[in-house]
Amino acid sequence: MTMKAPVSCLILASLLGAILVTASGKPGTEKWKETDRAAILAVLTTQQNDWNKGDIRGFMEGYWNSSELTFAGTRGFTRGWQPVLERYEKSYSDKAAMGTLDFQELEIRQLGPDAALALGKWHLQRQAGDVGGIFTLVFQRFPDGWRIVHDHTTQSPPETK
Amino acid sequence: MTMKAPVSCLILASLLGAILVTASGKPGTEKWKETDRAAILAVLTTQQNDWNKGDIRGFMEGYWNSSELTFAGTRGFTRGWQPVLERYEKSYSDKAAMGTLDFQELEIRQLGPDAALALGKWHLQRQAGDVGGIFTLVFQRFPDGWRIVHDHTTQSPPETK
Repeated sequence: MTMKAPVSCLILASLLGAILVTASGKPGTEKWKETDRAAILAVLTTQQNDWNKGDIRGFMEGYWNSSELTFAGTRGFTRGWQPVLERYEKSYSDKAAMGTLDFQELEIRQLGPDAALALGKWHLQRQAGDVGGIFTLVFQRFPDGWRIVHDHTTQSPPETK
Repeated sequence: MTMKAPVSCLILASLLGAILVTASGKPGTEKWKETDRAAILAVLTTQQNDWNKGDIRGFMEGYWNSSELTFAGTRGFTRGWQPVLERYEKSYSDKAAMGTLDFQELEIRQLGPDAALALGKWHLQRQAGDVGGIFTLVFQRFPDGWRIVHDHTTQSPPETK
């Protein structure tokens, strides 16, 4: 079969080709925008503010509300949004135990169009004694925004003087 | 401007449209195959085998050879392939210190076309005393295969009897 390609057809083909290149692009980058970094930072800032109001349920809004959410802590894995909430409620029974949370040295890395890695340090200022450590958060994009799907948080051992 | 679209042109447009749909597809799933899970497991198995031969450099092949590689341990972050190697060499000075490594309860989750999350438990059987804990690994796909781009490893506190 021989096809004649008139000019109008070539223009259409070029247009479609251009769209195609834009859509496929470099793998994992086509949807990521600088606003995604800001959106992830906003989730963490909201978590920090809710924590400092003593609002653990507000803090938990940053997590994927799913039985597949995972939290890796000192004593192993906790699986599911509800068990992670209960773990926090048990470890931090009141506002004094929760103290004042501060995230530091945040680093956000894109892992694909809908996934990101956030690393940083956490610090709790408390009358009973400060604690802190480091964390690894894996974020995924959902229709209602970015949520933490996996959290690995480590508490640093006490400083030796 | 009015364009006439002959049949040949419509066929071309349809073909390009079909390619476009295939290329964009469902975000983050178009490239992932079941073989990717097997490829990631193979990286971990090779790491385990190299460790058990006392070959830390072989073990390090599983990591992204980059100054951007990150390792989160008990005392904070280590950044870069070479510093991570040196950290391992310092912590595990000989084959007796390295012991026998075993990964357990491995879970691999897709994070996009070129990224994955691997969770699991590690255990070192050693004459000087066993140690173990949990880990979070973030993998990314590179032209030469899947590599760990971030590792968060926690050592469990000794069991209280």
